[in-house]
Amino acid sequence: MAERRHLLDVDDLDREDMERVLDTARSFSEVLHRPIKKVPSLRGKTVVNLFYESSTRTRMSFEVAAKRLSADVLNFNVSTSSVEKGESFKDTALTLEAMGVDAVVVRHPVAGAPWLLRQWLQAAILNAGDGMHAHPTQALLDLFTMQERLGELQGRTIAFVGDILHSRVARSGIKACRAMGMKVLAVAPPTLLPPVALEGVVTGSDLDDVIPHCDVLYMLRIQMERQKEGRFPSLEEYTRLYQLNMQRLGKARPQVVVMHPGPMNRGVEIAAEVADAPHAAITAQVSAGVAIRMAVLFLLLGGSEGGEKVA
Amino acid sequence: MAERRHLLDVDDLDREDMERVLDTARSFSEVLHRPIKKVPSLRGKTVVNLFYESSTRTRMSFEVAAKRLSADVLNFNVSTSSVEKGESFKDTALTLEAMGVDAVVVRHPVAGAPWLLRQWLQAAILNAGDGMHAHPTQALLDLFTMQERLGELQGRTIAFVGDILHSRVARSGIKACRAMGMKVLAVAPPTLLPPVALEGVVTGSDLDDVIPHCDVLYMLRIQMERQKEGRFPSLEEYTRLYQLNMQRLGKARPQVVVMHPGPMNRGVEIAAEVADAPHAAITAQVSAGVAIRMAVLFLLLGGSEGGEKVA
Amino acid sequence: MAERRHLLDVDDLDREDMERVLDTARSFSEVLHRPIKKVPSLRGKTVVNLFYESSTRTRMSFEVAAKRLSADVLNFNVSTSSVEKGESFKDTALTLEAMGVDAVVVRHPVAGAPWLLRQWLQAAILNAGDGMHAHPTQALLDLFTMQERLGELQGRTIAFVGDILHSRVARSGIKACRAMGMKVLAVAPPTLLPPVALEGVVTGSDLDDVIPHCDVLYMLRIQMERQKEGRFPSLEEYTRLYQLNMQRLGKARPQVVVMHPGPMNRGVEIAAEVADAPHAAITAQVSAGVAIRMAVLFLLLGGSEGGEKVA
Repeated sequence: MAERRHLLDVDDLDREDMERVLDTARSFSEVLHRPIKKVPSLRGKTVVNLFYESSTRTRMSFEVAAKRLSADVLNFNVSTSSVEKGESFKDTALTLEAMGVDAVVVRHPVAGAPWLLRQWLQAAILNAGDGMHAHPTQALLDLFTMQERLGELQGRTIAFVGDILHSRVARSGIKACRAMGMKVLAVAPPTLLPPVALEGVVTGSDLDDVIPHCDVLYMLRIQMERQKEGRFPSLEEYTRLYQLNMQRLGKARPQVVVMHPGPMNRGVEIAAEVADAPHAAITAQVSAGVAIRMAVLFLLLGGSEGGEKVA
Repeated sequence: MAERRHLLDVDDLDREDMERVLDTARSFSEVLHRPIKKVPSLRGKTVVNLFYESSTRTRMSFEVAAKRLSADVLNFNVSTSSVEKGESFKDTALTLEAMGVDAVVVRHPVAGAPWLLRQWLQAAILNAGDGMHAHPTQALLDLFTMQERLGELQGRTIAFVGDILHSRVARSGIKACRAMGMKVLAVAPPTLLPPVALEGVVTGSDLDDVIPHCDVLYMLRIQMERQKEGRFPSLEEYTRLYQLNMQRLGKARPQVVVMHPGPMNRGVEIAAEVADAPHAAITAQVSAGVAIRMAVLFLLLGGSEGGEKVA
Repeated sequence: MAERRHLLDVDDLDREDMERVLDTARSFSEVLHRPIKKVPSLRGKTVVNLFYESSTRTRMSFEVAAKRLSADVLNFNVSTSSVEKGESFKDTALTLEAMGVDAVVVRHPVAGAPWLLRQWLQAAILNAGDGMHAHPTQALLDLFTMQERLGELQGRTIAFVGDILHSRVARSGIKACRAMGMKVLAVAPPTLLPPVALEGVVTGSDLDDVIPHCDVLYMLRIQMERQKEGRFPSLEEYTRLYQLNMQRLGKARPQVVVMHPGPMNRGVEIAAEVADAPHAAITAQVSAGVAIRMAVLFLLLGGSEGGEKVA
């Protein structure tokens, strides 16, 4: 990844690249347990969070990561920006680059937007979620979290459960898990599954059938507005068939890892008791997010000469 | 306070603790007059401002305080956050903690919210105002300001004037003044006084009667919406009976200190001339706010080993 | 400028002052091409962006500039501030000063607002745009950009094209260009020209007539709402007569410099092809903005003792 300049999707990374990100994140994860949780690696670099969708959670994770590397951080949210005045995406991007930013962390409702930035800018582009398309740092932090809980991932089984069709978390996550040699299942009501089968993924609609065979149950967030679109009959019905509750958890393997990208709808896709159970790795995912984003920023912006600065 | 981890209300502090905060704030106050107004005490620490009510003034005061201690600061405002997506207060808090924050400065419209955070989190919790309940750093900065003007506070008399009933400023301020041995009066229309007498506080509704006996006149902000609730007859009436104007100031002790927590309604609870008179310590309160918040952050996050770093 | 404490309009600066700002900006411009784009000149200083109009572009430019000088930056936007609670401009300003800020960068819809701040505060005041009145850092960054492209400006010809009447960019820019010995033209529909002639400025309404004689074509942003006010007949008409398109550019001098303060309405005042042509210095203006704002902050806050710190 030393010679790579962007992180647009997990496809950009081969397995060796991924392992390098995960190893680097592991070093940074140790930094985060020190009293002074800060390293000077990216001093004098500027990272801009260019968010066309509001996401405090992801924006703050990148902000914390950049600050712990001693980078300066700028937040550019669309709602308060000149975008309202009709400036084009390209001109906004060129303006940021002209200010001398080194990395652009972009979230955009349109799939593919980060690839446009890559054409226009010299800065490193990090995709923080584009439409229903990709969310590569989420996929990497999920791998990190699974490795922490399970060790070796090769041959393990993960089920993504819920709105597979609209989920960039699932899309990037499935690619990443497959690249690490995992067996991937996708479980959802038929209307929330992709119309064309995903390569190498076993799909189904019966959660109870699948649970006993999984090492990881990855519960996706339900967007309430999908109900209005007629994607599922009712919240009660969805909850009855797809909520991970204590009863279902009781049928899983004893060491099963429960994951969720957040923010959770407690009582919808996941029961509150499950969210608080020891199987849940949900806050561990958040912590992993900071370490992974530090690793990616470090490798993209300062990696070549600075590997030893981590320690 | 070295062994304390939170500041939820002034009840948390005995008189010795308060003196320690005030002394530490006095040291930091000197730092603020240097050309380089910054000390490295909290380098590598992260402070999050978690504000469920907008308050630029208090948020900025904490932000300045944290930055002058070299901490990193994150601002988390509800209006732009995933709280909109229905995430619970608890999950938001756990997410922040999982990102590795060391202190959470919380403002919340619900009384008691900071006590919930204390149950859930390992981080230091600082209450920056909860409902009509408490606002301890305001009370401490008020003590600091009074000490600067009056020296010893024991035996001095303060009158809180205005909307005592709904005021967290008054509630915490009264406790703090009583703990320092001050005589406390509360003056308001009967409808803006608490239905049950406050312990050790003399209440009344005649401001003119009280003015000549006070060392401090603490004018509370009038919330215009209280009029609609029928809490006072009219703004004109309120102003006539309770505004601190030049005529009333003329009947006060020559060294009387006029205070207000801000933002002021000039011409309502305080006349513009009084706000600009030498008796007013209102901007001094703002300056004290930065020093007090530096002191509290320092004592909670870095106090034990770092006392000498202040100088 | 060492003895000056504010930058309110370009009138504050004589030609020697301007040259000093431009020279200092040139030094900082080199810093911005280093791997570590940061100097410690303003460590321990606090700069507040006090914005009563939203302008992500200008606010970010000042924020980047201050951070590259190692200052701390606070953003104070009206929409989320206690200004909503009715606090006066003066009290907001006094509050910021009491927090110990060293410089206030102010944008305000009312012409003259920064001059009020100068009366009230000890801090350095930088005008980031007041009403239709002045925008001095824009004028300085425009000079910087022209010098980079053209070298010596004395005797060069610039045409400001568009809504001269309502433009603070034009107002400050015209003064700055005249101070540097340039010949200044103003081209607009008669309804968008000032009713009283600007001193030393040749005004006209025929863009095609003017183009062949200019070294710089400065295209102003059209505010769409002016059409409703009856200031110009229709967008089509305006575009036909005043848009800088490729055909018009073909009649200009070969080395003509095309400028725009941003954000652009591509296809209105400027054709997309022109915005992307090599003549356009629009992103260069953005880069110059950071260097100029670093220079101004440095000279106002740290200039006397610190000139050598730049290098």
